[in-house]
Amino acid sequence: MQLLRLGAPGSERPAVRADDGTTYDLSPVTGEIDGPFLAADGVARTRAALAAGTLPALDPEGLRVGPPVAGVGKIVCIGLNYRDHAEETGAAIPAEPVVFLKTPDTIVGPYDEVLVPRNSVKTDWEVELGVVIGRTARYLETEEEALACVAGYTVSHDVSEREFQIERGGQWDKGKNCETFNPLGPFLVPAEDVPDPQALGMRLSVNGTTRQDSSTKHMIFSVAEVIRYLSWFLVLRPGDLVNTGTPAGVALGHPEPQPYLRAGDVVELSIDGLGTQRQTFGQA
Amino acid sequence: MQLLRLGAPGSERPAVRADDGTTYDLSPVTGEIDGPFLAADGVARTRAALAAGTLPALDPEGLRVGPPVAGVGKIVCIGLNYRDHAEETGAAIPAEPVVFLKTPDTIVGPYDEVLVPRNSVKTDWEVELGVVIGRTARYLETEEEALACVAGYTVSHDVSEREFQIERGGQWDKGKNCETFNPLGPFLVPAEDVPDPQALGMRLSVNGTTRQDSSTKHMIFSVAEVIRYLSWFLVLRPGDLVNTGTPAGVALGHPEPQPYLRAGDVVELSIDGLGTQRQTFGQA
Repeated sequence: MQLLRLGAPGSERPAVRADDGTTYDLSPVTGEIDGPFLAADGVARTRAALAAGTLPALDPEGLRVGPPVAGVGKIVCIGLNYRDHAEETGAAIPAEPVVFLKTPDTIVGPYDEVLVPRNSVKTDWEVELGVVIGRTARYLETEEEALACVAGYTVSHDVSEREFQIERGGQWDKGKNCETFNPLGPFLVPAEDVPDPQALGMRLSVNGTTRQDSSTKHMIFSVAEVIRYLSWFLVLRPGDLVNTGTPAGVALGHPEPQPYLRAGDVVELSIDGLGTQRQTFGQA
Repeated sequence: MQLLRLGAPGSERPAVRADDGTTYDLSPVTGEIDGPFLAADGVARTRAALAAGTLPALDPEGLRVGPPVAGVGKIVCIGLNYRDHAEETGAAIPAEPVVFLKTPDTIVGPYDEVLVPRNSVKTDWEVELGVVIGRTARYLETEEEALACVAGYTVSHDVSEREFQIERGGQWDKGKNCETFNPLGPFLVPAEDVPDPQALGMRLSVNGTTRQDSSTKHMIFSVAEVIRYLSWFLVLRPGDLVNTGTPAGVALGHPEPQPYLRAGDVVELSIDGLGTQRQTFGQA
């Protein structure tokens, strides 16, 4: 089952795609796919409505695909969470998760234009497994409790400006929060439909050239450990998003000349079972 | 004129305090003091309603004071923005603003309990001038344009856990986003009532002992420069908050033994014309 939001930016409507590929209008169940919906057993209610056959079918043709979750409260990101990526950037393997933040207004749809910031010469890509929270996570003791807080999974593109991030005087956030820097989607897959979040192939290409090709099995800190760990430093709430880090293959780790992104470049990224994003980059 | 929100957490009502000290219910003008209100000339409409004498008076006695702005979209923070604070922490004077983030769900009212996180031994204080955005700031050229984006000013307490921030493996955000770590208020003063945001005395005490006593005139990067600068790295939107940095006097900069905060400690902080906060610390 896939949860998605269809329509123009700011006026998306909730939808669900059944396993047979049919898309249904989810408006009879909820006005929005967001934290309150996920916290109030929205996935189970959607499944029940699908089973009951009460949802009207919907033709998604021609409708823009928005980010699959609305009203994201915060985006917590894990840095250097794949050994090969830490190595390619010359960083030490972290002893515990590296944490930074993106602001929710960086989220755009999976096929929306992404803007290379003005003055940017080092705009970079990062395919990541996005974890959407469905239940409040606060001081969790076990990885089982942590996984119980996960509503579902989606593809998250942690677009990054490396000069802003690393060379402009402290704290990565400066290069992680430019306008349009977090494409999300195309859909949210409920956690119970992802038997093992640590066994998902993931890949990214730029203008048809494969740049990242890895699997979530190479994470240093698993999804469960990341959620458990984070819950000791902040409160994760329903509708929050956790970006779990990227594997090797980013422009920053490429031999010179590094193929940073420019207006006109096309980036495609996908994770097994979670769909494919495709963005054409523009210039801010 | 002071804009404020009164009532229990999550059900605060908007209010305005006139220059004669009388508090009025602002509900006839707006349901909420938030980004859309500020962006839609809410301050001017409030002033007009006050002048017209149409607002019902309100007795604030016994009502909790909430954070003065609801629906904050993001909190952008400037690090090391006072020379003496950079020096006391052993950091270099920054050549350009250091930027990190807090998540909006860390915001609590100015007199609410603040929780020392579990496992924390280095919970610290930071009095800061909080700048609330009233107009979208994106790629601004001048400091005049930047100041035109400011809706008003308030007291912001950037509570920080120094071990989490500095000693736990990268990026300050890890020690800046614990539950209840951003008391805000007691009220928002419109920008036009603050003739010079760079001439405001600010102070903080712990259990009656003065710890910080400085002025916004000692900022390395002024409010105007900070807003202009940030607008080249992210989009500031109405209702966003910018914490502009703290002067010397935090526990981190104190000779050993450093007087970090513990449950039961009482912190009072104030900025000229923007009121006083007072928090009793508890244990998470």
